[in-house]
Amino acid sequence: MSNDTVKVLDHGCVKLIETWGCDERIIEAARMSTNKGFQGWETDARLLAYLYANRHMTPFEMAGAVFEIEAPIFVFREWHRHRTQSYNELSARYTPLPDANYLPTLDRVKQSSGSNKQAQGVSALAGDDQLQLWLDRLQILYSSIEAHYQDGLAMGVPKELARLPIPVGRYSRMRASANLRNWLQFLDLRTAENAQLEIREYAKAIATELSHAFPRTLHLFTEGRKA
Amino acid sequence: MSNDTVKVLDHGCVKLIETWGCDERIIEAARMSTNKGFQGWETDARLLAYLYANRHMTPFEMAGAVFEIEAPIFVFREWHRHRTQSYNELSARYTPLPDANYLPTLDRVKQSSGSNKQAQGVSALAGDDQLQLWLDRLQILYSSIEAHYQDGLAMGVPKELARLPIPVGRYSRMRASANLRNWLQFLDLRTAENAQLEIREYAKAIATELSHAFPRTLHLFTEGRKA
Amino acid sequence: MSNDTVKVLDHGCVKLIETWGCDERIIEAARMSTNKGFQGWETDARLLAYLYANRHMTPFEMAGAVFEIEAPIFVFREWHRHRTQSYNELSARYTPLPDANYLPTLDRVKQSSGSNKQAQGVSALAGDDQLQLWLDRLQILYSSIEAHYQDGLAMGVPKELARLPIPVGRYSRMRASANLRNWLQFLDLRTAENAQLEIREYAKAIATELSHAFPRTLHLFTEGRKA
Amino acid sequence: MSNDTVKVLDHGCVKLIETWGCDERIIEAARMSTNKGFQGWETDARLLAYLYANRHMTPFEMAGAVFEIEAPIFVFREWHRHRTQSYNELSARYTPLPDANYLPTLDRVKQSSGSNKQAQGVSALAGDDQLQLWLDRLQILYSSIEAHYQDGLAMGVPKELARLPIPVGRYSRMRASANLRNWLQFLDLRTAENAQLEIREYAKAIATELSHAFPRTLHLFTEGRKA
Repeated sequence: MSNDTVKVLDHGCVKLIETWGCDERIIEAARMSTNKGFQGWETDARLLAYLYANRHMTPFEMAGAVFEIEAPIFVFREWHRHRTQSYNELSARYTPLPDANYLPTLDRVKQSSGSNKQAQGVSALAGDDQLQLWLDRLQILYSSIEAHYQDGLAMGVPKELARLPIPVGRYSRMRASANLRNWLQFLDLRTAENAQLEIREYAKAIATELSHAFPRTLHLFTEGRKA
Repeated sequence: MSNDTVKVLDHGCVKLIETWGCDERIIEAARMSTNKGFQGWETDARLLAYLYANRHMTPFEMAGAVFEIEAPIFVFREWHRHRTQSYNELSARYTPLPDANYLPTLDRVKQSSGSNKQAQGVSALAGDDQLQLWLDRLQILYSSIEAHYQDGLAMGVPKELARLPIPVGRYSRMRASANLRNWLQFLDLRTAENAQLEIREYAKAIATELSHAFPRTLHLFTEGRKA
Repeated sequence: MSNDTVKVLDHGCVKLIETWGCDERIIEAARMSTNKGFQGWETDARLLAYLYANRHMTPFEMAGAVFEIEAPIFVFREWHRHRTQSYNELSARYTPLPDANYLPTLDRVKQSSGSNKQAQGVSALAGDDQLQLWLDRLQILYSSIEAHYQDGLAMGVPKELARLPIPVGRYSRMRASANLRNWLQFLDLRTAENAQLEIREYAKAIATELSHAFPRTLHLFTEGRKA
Repeated sequence: MSNDTVKVLDHGCVKLIETWGCDERIIEAARMSTNKGFQGWETDARLLAYLYANRHMTPFEMAGAVFEIEAPIFVFREWHRHRTQSYNELSARYTPLPDANYLPTLDRVKQSSGSNKQAQGVSALAGDDQLQLWLDRLQILYSSIEAHYQDGLAMGVPKELARLPIPVGRYSRMRASANLRNWLQFLDLRTAENAQLEIREYAKAIATELSHAFPRTLHLFTEGRKA
C-alpha cells in the first residue's frame, strides 16, 4: 500500500488520487482583489490566517483534491449529504458488490456510554458477554445475507433487485472530488465530537492527506479545532 | 389518504407538501430580460414552449415544490445524487427505523428478461417456483434482520451501530425540496427507460403531483418524453 | 406602491413576489430525523433557536422567497456572487436600459471618514463644495453617457455594443429566488459593517420583507446580529 | 507572453494557471461503477465518446482548470451567471481600476446586420463615417469618465463611490476555477452562435487552452459543435 493510502476501520481506506493548487495559490487568488500576487510567507502567513479566521473562503475554492474511498454504505449515506462534492461510486446495479462488511469491536460498542444521545442505545447497556454475542451473530447474519444475495444472482434475479438484503454495514467504493473550501467544511462537520465515530475516522484520514499538500491551511484548521 | 398523496410500491408514498410559483411566473421571469410581464397564454404558450425546447431553464428556477417521500434506502441512495435538491431524512442515529421493507412481486423479478443490462441477472433466469422461494426467503431474512436490530437496541447497543444489518430494501422517509428546473432534470433522468423501475415509479408520482400545479410546463415535459 | 414594495436608494426598490414555507415548516423538516412533526411553539421555539445557533441549516432550505429588485449595476455585481440564488435580469442585449442612475448624497460621500478601508478615498477628503461639485459633474457625465448611448441606438449600433459606456451606477432590474438558508447567508454577509452601504440598504429591505413571512427565524437573525 | 496566455479583444487575455485530472482520469471515474480502471484508449475511446454523447457527465467532474482572465465588465457580467464556477476578481472597492476600455472595431459594429436580434440595433445601420465618429466619441467619453474617476479619488471620494461612472466596457481581471463538466457547459453556451461575439472570443480561448490538457474530451466537444 502506497504512502498515499490510509487504512480506516476494518476493511476501509482513503487513497489520495490527486490535489490541485497549494497554499500559495490561495494567497494569489485572495490578492486578485487588490491586483497583487504572492508576497512571501513572512507577509502572507498573516493574510492566510486572516482569510481563514474571518471566513473569507472563496480563495480556498482555487485548490482541491480527489480521493478514492472504501467505506460502509451508512458512512457514504452521511457523506453524500455534502452536495458540493462530486461522486462516482461502485453500482450494485452493474456489478455484484464484494463481500466486505463492517464489524465494530466490543470497545467501540461500549462507547455508547458517552454523552452523545446518538451514541446511546435506547436501553441500559448489556454486559460484555451479551454484547460480544450480538456482534458474533451480526457476523453470521452478514454471511446469511451474502448467501441469499449470491443465490439470487445465481438464479438470474436482476442485480438491481438481488441487492435488496445488502446491509448498510456493507462496504462500497467511490471517488470524491471537491475544492478545498468544501473539504474544510466536510472536515469541520465530520471531525466534530457529535459526528459518528466511523465517519470521523474517515475525516481524520482526509485531513492527514490534505495536510501534506496544504500544510499551512490544514494547520489553521487544526488550530481552529483546538480553540 | 388525501388527494395530495400517491401510493408507490408496497409501502411507499409521495406526498405533496407545497408548491411555489406557477406557469405564469416562469413567463414573468423570462420577460425580465425585455422588461415586460405576462401577456396572456395566447401569446405566451409559444414562449413557454420555446424556453423549454431551447433549454433556457433559468426562468423555471422561479417555481418549485416540496415533497415528503417514503421509499426504500436503495431508492434514496440514487435520489441523493441529485445534489441540487434539499433533503431532511429520518435518521437511524436518532430514532429506531420502522419495520417496513420492499418485497418485489414475482412479475417484477421476471422483468429481468428486458433489454437493459442493469435489469438482467448474471445467470439465466430460474423458474417461477425457485424465484418465488427466493422472495419468500427474502421476507424471512428481513424478519431475522429486524429481530437482530431489536435485540441490539434492547441491549443498549447505540442506535448508530445497531442499524448495521439494516438492508437497503428498508423504507426510510424524507422531505425533498427543489426548484422546478431541478425537478424537471430529476424527471428527465428518472423516468428514462434505463432508470431502475422502482425510482421510475417515484418519478411518475412526482410528475403527477407537479402536473396539477404546473400543467403547461409538465405538458411540455410529457410531450418531450414522447418525441 | 404596495405594502410589499420597499424603496431603496434614490431610484431603487425591493418588491416581494412570493414566499414559500413558514417557521413551522422548518420545524417539521428538522423533525424528520426523529419522525415527529411540529409540537407547538411552547416546545419548538427552543428547537428553532437551537437549529439556528448551532448552524443546523438544512431545515431552513425548506422555505424561501422570490423578490424583484431594482438596483445599480455595481450592487448587482456584488449580489451575483451569491451563487446559490436564481436570477433573471433585464438584458441590455435585448432592451435599451432605462435612464436611471445612482447619485449619492453629499453626506453619503463624507462617510468616507469611517474606519473601513474600503470606504476611504486614496487621499484626504476634500471640502463640501468640491465634493458637491464632483457630484454635480457626475450627474452631467451620466447625461453625456446617456446621450451617447441613445446616439448609438439611433445609428443602428447593436444594443449589445451601444451599451459599452453605460456606467456601473446605472440601475438595472432582476428577480432573485433563494431558499431561506441562502437568504440568511446573504443577510449575514450583506448587513455586516464591512459591506458597502448601498448593498446593506438592499439587505435591510430584504430582511424587513422576510420578517413578515418568517417572524421567528428573522427574530433569531436580528438577535444574532446584536450579539 | 508565455504559451499559456491567449490574447483576446483589444486589451484582454486568458491565461491558464493550472489543470487537474486528464482524459484517463475521466475513464477511471466512470469505471468506478463497475469496479474496473482505465483499459487503454483502443477500448476506452469508445467509452469516453459514449459518456459524452449520452450526457453521463459526472466523470467529467473529476478534472478541471483554473484560469486568469482580463475582460470587460459586461463580459464578466455574463460570465458570472455560471454559478458553478469559483471566482476571485479585482475589486474597485479596494483598488483603483486600471484605465483599459474595450473599443470595438468598425467591422465589429457592422456585424449588426447579422440575423441575431440581439446583434441588431433598434434602427437601420448608419454609414461608416457616422459609425466611426460614434466610436471616436466613445473613446473620448472613456477618457472623460477616467478623468472624473481620478478627480474623485484625488478628492478623497471613497473608492467604492468614485467608481460610479466606470463603464461596463472597462476591463477587469479575475481568476475562475471549475471542473471540466462545468467548463464544457460554459463552452456549450458561450461558443454558440447566439452568444455575444465578445464572450465567444473568450470561450474560444478557453477551449484552446483546455484542448492541450484534455485533447480527447475537447475533440468530442469540437465534433459535437459541428454536428
